[in-house]
Formats: sequence, C-alpha cells, structure tokens
Amino acid sequence: MAKKSDSYLSVEKNAIVENGFHKEKNQVSESLFSLGNEYSGVRGFFEEGVSLPSLIGTYYNGIIEYGLKDTPNAYLGIAKRTHFTINSTNYLKAIIIIDGVRLDLGKEEVESFKRSLSFDNGLYERSFFLHRGKKKIEVSFKRMLGMNSPHEAVQEISFLSSEDADLDITMSLDGTILHWGDHNYWEKGDHYESDCEYGLYLKTPTTKQSLLSLMKIEAPCLPIKTDSLDKEIDVHYHLTLKKGIKTTFTRYVINIADKKGTLDYPSTKKSASEELDRLVHKGLFGLTKENEEFFALRKTASDIEIDGDEKDQQGIRFCLFNLLQAYTGLDGDDNIGAKGLTGEAYSGHAFWDSETYCLPYYLFSNEQAAKDLLLFRYHTLEQAKKRAKELDCEGACFPIATRNGEEACTLWQHASTQLQPTSAVGYAIFHYMNLYDDESFLREYGLEMLLEISKFLLTRGQWNQTHTRFGYYGVMGPDEFEVMVNHNTYTNYMGKRIMSYTLSILQDPKYENKTLLKRCGYDQKLINEMKEAIEKMCILYDPKTKLYEQHQGFYDLPHIDVDKIPVSDFPLYSHWAYDRIFRNDMIKQPDVLMFLFLYASDFSKEVKKANYEYYEPRCIHESSLSPSVHSIIAEEIGKDDEALSFFGFATRLDLDDYNRNTSEGLHMTSIAAAWMNIVYGFLGLRSDRTPLAINPKLPKRWSHYSVRLMYHHRHLKFDVYPNKLTITNEDAPVSLIVYGQSVMVDKLYEVNR
Amino acid sequence: MAKKSDSYLSVEKNAIVENGFHKEKNQVSESLFSLGNEYSGVRGFFEEGVSLPSLIGTYYNGIIEYGLKDTPNAYLGIAKRTHFTINSTNYLKAIIIIDGVRLDLGKEEVESFKRSLSFDNGLYERSFFLHRGKKKIEVSFKRMLGMNSPHEAVQEISFLSSEDADLDITMSLDGTILHWGDHNYWEKGDHYESDCEYGLYLKTPTTKQSLLSLMKIEAPCLPIKTDSLDKEIDVHYHLTLKKGIKTTFTRYVINIADKKGTLDYPSTKKSASEELDRLVHKGLFGLTKENEEFFALRKTASDIEIDGDEKDQQGIRFCLFNLLQAYTGLDGDDNIGAKGLTGEAYSGHAFWDSETYCLPYYLFSNEQAAKDLLLFRYHTLEQAKKRAKELDCEGACFPIATRNGEEACTLWQHASTQLQPTSAVGYAIFHYMNLYDDESFLREYGLEMLLEISKFLLTRGQWNQTHTRFGYYGVMGPDEFEVMVNHNTYTNYMGKRIMSYTLSILQDPKYENKTLLKRCGYDQKLINEMKEAIEKMCILYDPKTKLYEQHQGFYDLPHIDVDKIPVSDFPLYSHWAYDRIFRNDMIKQPDVLMFLFLYASDFSKEVKKANYEYYEPRCIHESSLSPSVHSIIAEEIGKDDEALSFFGFATRLDLDDYNRNTSEGLHMTSIAAAWMNIVYGFLGLRSDRTPLAINPKLPKRWSHYSVRLMYHHRHLKFDVYPNKLTITNEDAPVSLIVYGQSVMVDKLYEVNR
Repeated sequence: MAKKSDSYLSVEKNAIVENGFHKEKNQVSESLFSLGNEYSGVRGFFEEGVSLPSLIGTYYNGIIEYGLKDTPNAYLGIAKRTHFTINSTNYLKAIIIIDGVRLDLGKEEVESFKRSLSFDNGLYERSFFLHRGKKKIEVSFKRMLGMNSPHEAVQEISFLSSEDADLDITMSLDGTILHWGDHNYWEKGDHYESDCEYGLYLKTPTTKQSLLSLMKIEAPCLPIKTDSLDKEIDVHYHLTLKKGIKTTFTRYVINIADKKGTLDYPSTKKSASEELDRLVHKGLFGLTKENEEFFALRKTASDIEIDGDEKDQQGIRFCLFNLLQAYTGLDGDDNIGAKGLTGEAYSGHAFWDSETYCLPYYLFSNEQAAKDLLLFRYHTLEQAKKRAKELDCEGACFPIATRNGEEACTLWQHASTQLQPTSAVGYAIFHYMNLYDDESFLREYGLEMLLEISKFLLTRGQWNQTHTRFGYYGVMGPDEFEVMVNHNTYTNYMGKRIMSYTLSILQDPKYENKTLLKRCGYDQKLINEMKEAIEKMCILYDPKTKLYEQHQGFYDLPHIDVDKIPVSDFPLYSHWAYDRIFRNDMIKQPDVLMFLFLYASDFSKEVKKANYEYYEPRCIHESSLSPSVHSIIAEEIGKDDEALSFFGFATRLDLDDYNRNTSEGLHMTSIAAAWMNIVYGFLGLRSDRTPLAINPKLPKRWSHYSVRLMYHHRHLKFDVYPNKLTITNEDAPVSLIVYGQSVMVDKLYEVNR
Repeated sequence: MAKKSDSYLSVEKNAIVENGFHKEKNQVSESLFSLGNEYSGVRGFFEEGVSLPSLIGTYYNGIIEYGLKDTPNAYLGIAKRTHFTINSTNYLKAIIIIDGVRLDLGKEEVESFKRSLSFDNGLYERSFFLHRGKKKIEVSFKRMLGMNSPHEAVQEISFLSSEDADLDITMSLDGTILHWGDHNYWEKGDHYESDCEYGLYLKTPTTKQSLLSLMKIEAPCLPIKTDSLDKEIDVHYHLTLKKGIKTTFTRYVINIADKKGTLDYPSTKKSASEELDRLVHKGLFGLTKENEEFFALRKTASDIEIDGDEKDQQGIRFCLFNLLQAYTGLDGDDNIGAKGLTGEAYSGHAFWDSETYCLPYYLFSNEQAAKDLLLFRYHTLEQAKKRAKELDCEGACFPIATRNGEEACTLWQHASTQLQPTSAVGYAIFHYMNLYDDESFLREYGLEMLLEISKFLLTRGQWNQTHTRFGYYGVMGPDEFEVMVNHNTYTNYMGKRIMSYTLSILQDPKYENKTLLKRCGYDQKLINEMKEAIEKMCILYDPKTKLYEQHQGFYDLPHIDVDKIPVSDFPLYSHWAYDRIFRNDMIKQPDVLMFLFLYASDFSKEVKKANYEYYEPRCIHESSLSPSVHSIIAEEIGKDDEALSFFGFATRLDLDDYNRNTSEGLHMTSIAAAWMNIVYGFLGLRSDRTPLAINPKLPKRWSHYSVRLMYHHRHLKFDVYPNKLTITNEDAPVSLIVYGQSVMVDKLYEVNR
C-alpha cells in the first residue's frame, strides 16, 4: 500500500495556503477550500468560473431529491428509488470582464496568485494580478459563511488597476447548476427584486423543500441591468476602474433552506429580509469577529497541538476545522455525509461512519452535537422501522446510506446484509451513556431506539438446524470483501452486546416504562427469546490460538498474499472482476479488529495481538477508515512503528490527495478517523468503560503534543512530552485511569515516565 | 405447491381450440396461438387490434439490440450493457371497419367465436359472427408460417355478410411497435411500392442488422390509397361486402432478417421479390401441404401418443409442436429463448436450459438440430473467451443469458457466479458424442470448446488454505436460493467430470492436435495442474448417509419447513425480501439431484433415494424446470406416485396457465422438460452411457403410451402397455439395455412384465 503524497499547499499551522495557481489541482483545491457550517457548504470554486475541470457545488444539509428512475431489478427489500443531497443555487457567481476580456484562470496566466483559508475564522481569500496590455490589475476575493448564524454568507470582490480599465461584472444567483453535471433538480418558485434586494426562490418537485437565496450588493455604482431568468438572477454592472483606486463589490447573502417544507413563503421572505439587514449592518468585519469567537471557543474544547512535525500539525488542524464545518450540533435533523458538504460523491449520505468514526470526536468536544447526532437516528426511527419490515424483520433497521432516514443504497449486497449501521446506533447510545449518563436522553429517546434495534437484531438472526447456535446468516460485515457469509463474528458479537445492553437497561428500575415496552412489543416471551439468542450467539473463538474467525469458513478460504498484489491493481474495484475480490481471505478493512477496538476494554492485549497479527497481513486497507483502527491497535500492543506507519498520512489524506480523489470532496469520516488515531492511538484513550482510561505515548516523529478533550463537562488538556505527561483540568476534579492507575485529576496532574 | 389449472381450451389431440372468446385470457391466448419456425415467431394477437391487455409481438431469432443505458454500478465483470431480441414489424396488421364501426373484440360481443391452431400443419384459424344492426357478418382469419421456407408467411381474411355492408380495411406493415411497450428499436431504412408489392426495410442502429418485409395483397379491388409513413406502410381498401358473397383478402409476406448485417439491400429486394412470386404461386394451399409434410416427417422421429388421458395427450403434442416451432436446426447461429419466439420476457435469451433441458429432445429426434445447438456455442466461443477474461479467468466462460454470445445478464450474483452454462456446454458435447460418436464434430469444434471450457473451469477454481481441496468459491449452483457459496457440489462435480472428459480425449490418439493444444495454451504443466485439480476436487459426500452436501455449510443453515410457507407467499420473489430467500436450507430447484440425473448411470438407486429424500422436502420448485427432474428421479427410485404427481401439469403448464404468466410467452424450456419427464421418467431412458438404457413404466393414469425416438440414426418406437413393452425398429438392428438386460432390437422386440 505505497500511497504517495501530492502536496502543493504551503505548510502553515492554522491555515491552508496555495501560493501560485495549481491549474491541474483546480478541482482538488475546490474541495480543500470548501466552506461549511453544518447548515450548508460551498466548494472553493472560482466565482468567475474557469475553463478547467471544476465542480461548482453548493449543498444544504437535508435538502434532497429522489432519482429520476427506479432501481432496475428492485426485488423486495431493495430500495426502489434512491435519494441524495442536491447541488443548489450558486450565490457566489460573478462573471468578470476586464477591458472586454473575460477573466478565466484556465486561459490566462496571472501573477502572485494566492489563496488561503484560515482555521481561525473560516475566511477564504484569493488574490492575484492580471494583465491587460500594459495594465496590471489586482483582483481579490473574500468569502465567509456564518458559523453561529448559518443563513449568512458574505462575498467581497475588489479590483485595483495600474491604469483606468473597463469592468463588466455580473453577479448572479444561479439556480441552474446541474447535479452530477447531469440534471438540475430544482423547480422555479419565484424571483423578486425590491430595495436592491434580489431573491431567488426554488422548490424541489418531489420532496417539497425550498431554498430562498436573498442577496444585496454594495457596489460603487448602480446596476445597468437586471435579468430575471427562469432559475437565475443576473445583476450587471459596468464601470471604469480608476487608476490606483480600489473598487469593491460586497455581496451579502441570506440562504434559507426549508428542509421540512413547512415554512410559509411570505414570512420567509420577510424574515430573510430582516436577517439580510442585520448582516449588512454587521458586515464582513463583524462576521469575522463572530467566527473568530466561535472557533476560539471550540478550540478550548478540542484542540490538538503537535510539536516536531508541522505537516501533522497543519493536518490535524485542518481535520478539526473541517469537523466543525461539517457538523456542530446545530440541528438534530442534520448528519455528516461521507464527504461532508464538499462534493456530490457518496450523495451526501451518512453511513455508519457517523456513529463509528465521527461520534467520538463530538463526544469529547461537544455533548450537544453528540446528542444531536444520535437524535438524527431517533428522528428517523419510523423509517428504520419501515426498513426492518421491508426486510421481513421487526424493530428498526438503520440504513447503510441515507440522508432522510430511508435506505438510499440500491445494492442489495450491502443494503440488505450489512447490519452494522443498526448495531452502530446501539453502540453509540451505549458510548454516549457511558460518558454522560444522560438519564433523560435514555428515557426519552435512547431506550426506545435500543428496544427497536434489539428487536431487529433478534428477528434478523436465525438458529442453525440443531438450534444450538444463534447468529446472522447472509451478511456482510465491516469487511466488504466477504459477501453473504454466515456467523460473521463482528455482526454476531455486536448483536450479542447490543441486545445484552438493552436487557441490562430493562433490569434498571430507573428506566421502567411499561407503556414503551408494550408499544415496542416486548413481553416476557420476547425477552426470553432474546436471552436465549444472546446466550447461544455463535462467537467463533479458539482459546488456544486466541483467534476469532472472521466468519464461518473464513480459515478455509483460498489465501492471497496481499503484498504480492501489484500496486497497479489498486483500487481493486477498478482492476479486478467484482466477484474475484470476494473469493479469498483478503480483507478490505478491520472486521474482527473492529469489535476488538469498540469493546477494547474487554479484550486482553494478547487477544488483540494474536488477531492483529493474523488479520493485518490480510488487509489491503481499501477503505480510508482502515489504517486508523490498525494504528490504534498496533499502538496498544506495542507495535509503535507500525502504529506510526499506519498513522502515516492520516491527517493529510486530503491535503496531500493521497487517494487522488479529493477532487470529489473531502473524506470527512477519515478526517474524524485521523482524530481518533491520535486520541485513541497515541493518547491511548479507552472510552468503553468508566472511568476513562488513557495510556499516552509520544510518537517518534513528534517532540511533544497536547490534546484537549471535554469529559464529563470538564475541559481537560493532556500534554505528552518525551518523559512526562501532564493533565490540566480547568474544572471540577475528575477520576481517570492513567497508565493503568486510577487517579483523581484536579487542576494539574503530572507523571514522569 | 398447490398450483391450479386455469383451463379454457377444448381438449383435442392434435390442435388447440378456443370456443367462444375468452376476453380475460386474451394475452394468454396470444402466447398459446403463437406461430414460429425457428427463424421467426409471431404471437397469436388479433390482426385488427383489440382494446384488451395485449402484446403485439413479432420476433426474429438473432435480431437484437442493446439497451439504451448502461447498467448502473457496473463493476468489472458485470455486463455493461445488455442486449435482447427486439419486437419487430407487425406484418399481419389489418384495421377493419364495417359499416363505420371499427372491429374490436374488446368492445363488441361476437357469436360463435372459434380459434384453432393445428399441430398437423401450423395453420392458425379464427372466425366469428358480428352484427351491424340486423346484418350478420362472418369474419374469418387464417395465417401460417412456412416451416421449410422460413421467410414465408400467408394471411387470409374473409368476410361473408347477410346483407350488403360497407368495409374499410387497412392492411399494414407496421414497424413502429414498442418493445416492452416502451421503445421502438428500429430505424427507418426504406419503403417502396412496385407492382403491387409493398416493402418496408428497417435497420437496427447499434447492431447494424436489418429486416425487409415485403408483402403482396390479393384483394377483390384496388387500394384506394397507400400511406408510407416513417416506419409503416398502410394500404387502404374500401368496398361493399355483397350479400352472401364471400370476400377474401390474402396477404403474402416475405420477411428477410439480415442477422449478420452482410446482405446487400438491392439484391435482398430482388430475391425477396422472387421469393414472393413463388409464395403467391404456391398459395396458402401449397404452403399448407408443405407444412403438413414437414410435421408428418418430424412425427416419425419424435411423436408421443398417450392413451388414457386426453389432456396429457394434447399437452405433450402441444409441447412437441412448439419445440419444432422454436428450433429445428435451421441455422447454427440460432438458439432457443426461454420463451422461444413467443414473448419479450427473458428477452429472447438462451440460458443453460438450451443444453440441459432442450438438447436431449433434439438429440433423440434430429441430429442436425442437436449439432446446430452446440454450434451456436462454437460460433460464440470468442465471446465466451472474452467473458472469461472479464472475470479474470482463462479459457471460455459461457454466459448465463445471451443471444449473441455476450453476457446479457446484468445481475452479478448470477452472471459472475453461475458456472453451469459453461459446464452444460461441456456436458452437452459429451452427451452428443455418447450418442453420435461424431468424430469430425469433435475434431473440428468439440475439442476446442472442451479445451477452453476446461481451462476456464481450472482457472476459476481455487485451492483452500492448506492446498488439500480444490473447488469453486463464491458460486451459485443451479439452486438460485444459495448465493456466493463455496464448494457447491454440483459445480465441483461438473467441473471434475468435464475436465476429466477433456483429458480423456487428449489421451485418445484419434484426436491428437498439437496445434490446437498450443493455441489453447495447453502444455504439460497445465495438464498436470488440471489432473491435480480433478483429483483433489472437493466433493462433499458422506458414505454413511449417502448424502452429498449441497455446499460447504449447507447442513448448518437455518431450516425452513417449506410446507408451512403459506401459498399466498408464492412466488417468493414477489413476497419475501430478496435476501431472506437465501438465508436457509430451502432450495429453488434440483442442485444435488441435478448431477445425479445428468450422470445418472454413475449413482446407485440408494444414493439417489437418500438425496431425493433429503433435498426434495426442502425444494419449493420455484423454477418451472424443477418438477420434471424430481419426477424422473422419483420414478427411478420407485416412488411412482410422487413421480406422477410431479409430472402433474408438466405438459400443460402453459395450456392451463398454471403459473399465471403464460401471457408473457410460452415456457419453452419447460416444454422441453415435459418431454424429458416422459422419456427419462416414465420410459426410464438413460443416455449418459452407451448403449442406451430404458426402464419403461406405465403411469397409473394412462392405459398405454408410445414414444418415438431417433437413436444412432434408427427410428425407434416404444409402446408401453400395462404388462408389455414393444420396441419397433424400422432401421438397422441396435443394441439397448432394456430393464437392465442387454438386448439387440431388430424390427420388433417385445417383453412382457
């Protein structure tokens, strides 16, 4: 797995900076320079357009449409029609013509190109000098999204010319963008102009959602013309750039996305107009101040500082910054797409990654966001119950890929057989409760989810012929290279643990709720069946070898020496026949190692070591989520070099475009996995029991690092030095297990090693 | 499996007859009254159209197009674009208006409706009386396809009115028919009119094939008008039907389908015109004579007479008639679609059914047709080699579904994992050679196919971890309810036998051909590898129980009592979640029993009995091909009642619409299976060794039956009476094994029982 970096950005601590325009990386930069605030995201495309590969993308969390055609061969239980987050109005578009020549960085060479995005305030800036004959004109752009006020966006475009020059600029709200370059999913609602405000109101035909984009432009002159097209408004300006005088256009935008389709249009117009007034009053300066406060506050909860490797430092800050851009707990109906809001790949869908890879970051930085992420599943419980029925089961089955709670994955071999999204929600509730012991959450939401999840896990399971073994037949575990297997140990183990957790809560008088039990169809018979299933769950473990067999029959599969697969064969999906990938003992990503990680405290180092040594050599890490889990376990079992090697490019997967597909959008869940890699790997955090355990080590290439975490409402800071660990606690004392010792951390705790 | 008949046709020995129009069965009748001659097929639709569910269908063997869109998620090895036999020019269309009212049997009631199709000559007739006020008009139709002269078709439409009546009739060549009611796949080539001949020439855009339909109408008057539309020619007549005088329109049609796209248009026009002249000269009378001779001749080779059950007699004659309509060995590039040429379901594709279910009928009735069926595979060997490469294997992999040799099935779980089409071709060669010992065939075609097939079977196979067992991983056997299993015994057994057969031929100096071996990449190393694979092929057999395990792990699968599945759950694909069907020990059709049938002579009755008793109760016979194999084995192991019960509706599956989908077309391969059921079941034929063995029994509900077969160029007739068997041999003496005794049959052999 020799992945190579393709770096072109300057290395800075708190920003990404592109010096000189990298044409060939245009679409990669568009992803990297994306802005987002959970509510919406906009790629870092050029407002003036460019004749280079480009994806003009603006997305709203929860604004979706359905595909135009039904899935072919949609047997029962296969999603009949998929849905996805749709590309929406481009509110930054500004066609620029100077001295009669249209600005196009794909065609003309410019000087001193610089683009930056600051992690301290989310300000995107771009500037360069262009030539028209002997004239030299500096053009600069700024843009920003409001982090606390997610409807707000500001754009500034400035010109400074060495001689008088002629400027034509058309600033648009463009609702005609094609999703996947193929189809525009919006219908015209309305457009209007009043008091120099321009509004474009669009609606989705099937999902009955809407988007109102309202803009006001502060310009040095009045527009010469306004065109109101079907789904586009173009405001044209013409003026002379006076020699040496800076000319600036500032556009203020309010975007109101009506996800639920419940907003009344006239009152939306009215409130948008009021919000726009406030934004104009605030200005870019005011918005910048607000964003700075936002990021500074978040930093106290979750910063990571690294000394000794500037690239890692920049990388992890980029990750932390983008986690905040993707999701901050703004809305319990939002979720984190595999690409965040930075592209169309993965269709804006949330996967089990949300609970498995992203949730830990929020658990340790923002309780509300963590809870909100769980609430997304609660809010889509009805869809999950419907899905279980579609699969001829009971309870709730959470989808493999979704934005609205319905299954969006049309591949039965994934959607009908991967139970990990469902068990991941169960695990996430357990994880959240372990840290926050939020009784009211469990009472109001968690228990009902657990009951429905466990019912699904019971009814999807089956008994073998002799009724001696319970388990899951015809499944695909996390390792997607093994299709339709029986007794996948991950699936069985998770099923056993989640059902046990549910029953343990039913034992607790605190959570007694007969009405709920009845509503969920729990009676003594069902509980007994569940107990029997838990007791007889088939877990393929051999105490002699300490190995868990990945699934029944795994050991007998043809062997492949993965090291002998030519590099040119990767990614395998593009080079191997589909079925060939599945017919051997090669694995795509951790499967046994995954439950050894999730329930880490339950397994000895010996067990982890045995399984790591068996499965790691069989793993090709085709998923970008794979190396982090391997790194974490390697660190725990003392394979520090391997741990560091797997960590490798974790924080810079996108910055250095290791997978050569950052152009499609950021790998948002890998970004979360990079955080996990440091916190669970090097810091050695274990959060599946209380009190929290840490076991910090200092990776070779760093001289010091610090991690800030929130835990039980305490702000904790861990500083790891070559021979010393300090823990700073700004809040009430808290008990932790540090290097295996139970300690009470009050203000400052220090240990030399 | 309580299937119910839905009979509405009269029971006759040599025809199907519908008395009274059964509106609700209109589309079923269209299938049943289909005409065909291998070259083309036309459904029994009403020429005048009808406002009832209807499928106007005309198909040519080998005239295909590709789908308009690529397969979604076409990973490597998954057919990127499917192809199918396309609905073609309707050359029977005749809009009829009498006294200003358009004839439409969906809207008006008619008297004495009668429709018939004779198995003796393939003449389709329809007649009825309709009313216009007090006038009573008899309308009658005839149509026929030439069996020996496959370009030819004749249609006759007559009117006889009780009073003068006004007739408007428009006779068309209509090339605008929508395939699947969705899209017309033809492009206009040309249309022309000369000498009262009307020609419509259409072309396929992608496959570059063409169809010329040329017609001449003998009418009592000249046409009043001819409309040449884009892909349609309409010839309008207007006349008065004179009281008591029969008025007849006779249409002669020549259809020339250029499958290979090599015909030159001007010369095709010319030859079509000459053929048309000959057809006009011959007339319907002459064509009927020719067809009678055709069917009479075929009858001497393959008739079955049944005394004691008229429905079975009609049923099997219907089967024999339709086998001849579907395929007669006219062209080595033709094949037998699962629905013949009687509908669009299964897209005109040939499956492994061609070799496994249809070939035996041709082997025992028409050597040339049998050989031609094999030649189809030889002619598509290059595509099969390409397919093997697509699957990252070597040799030749024959497709699951095809018309042009390319894989047309876009479902990877079938197309990439079912190896039975390939082994079926190997078995078919073995079977053909066993009966005909056709050295030149083997030398010219068979050996090369066997070499490529065996190479595929070798390279698709894999070794287990310890290199102790060879076999196929990630396959689906004939039982399509078990997906992605390892060591499916059918697949492994067939692989072993086919590779062994190939090697045995290589041992035979008669077939020494170093050039061929080299071309196919056979060297000693490969042969040794093949020997090792054969030797270590994993065959899951337990001598104690005499059971073959269907695949590794089958015995541990959750059990389903198939008798407890409510009848309303069938067909399961429409009532169960797709993946649920697969997660248990329920099987769809014979799998272990299938190889016990194919290599019947190699297994003892005890083995067959043990496996029948284990697997039959687990089988739901969701495939229409399943009961016949069960019936054959049941008969052999002495379960005569079960054998008869499985035979049940075999000959009348379509006649009585047992599956309620005859409307989509005839189940052509089930029709062949019905023949097998009688010949291999009741007559007890075994043809996997020489000499041929028979073991005739008389089913309870029959008093006598006779079977005519061709064997080694002899015309044999077997008469089975309650206590007696006679074998009549019109040709040279032949040795047979009868009731286990080796006998020489010369003229007449008789044995009392």
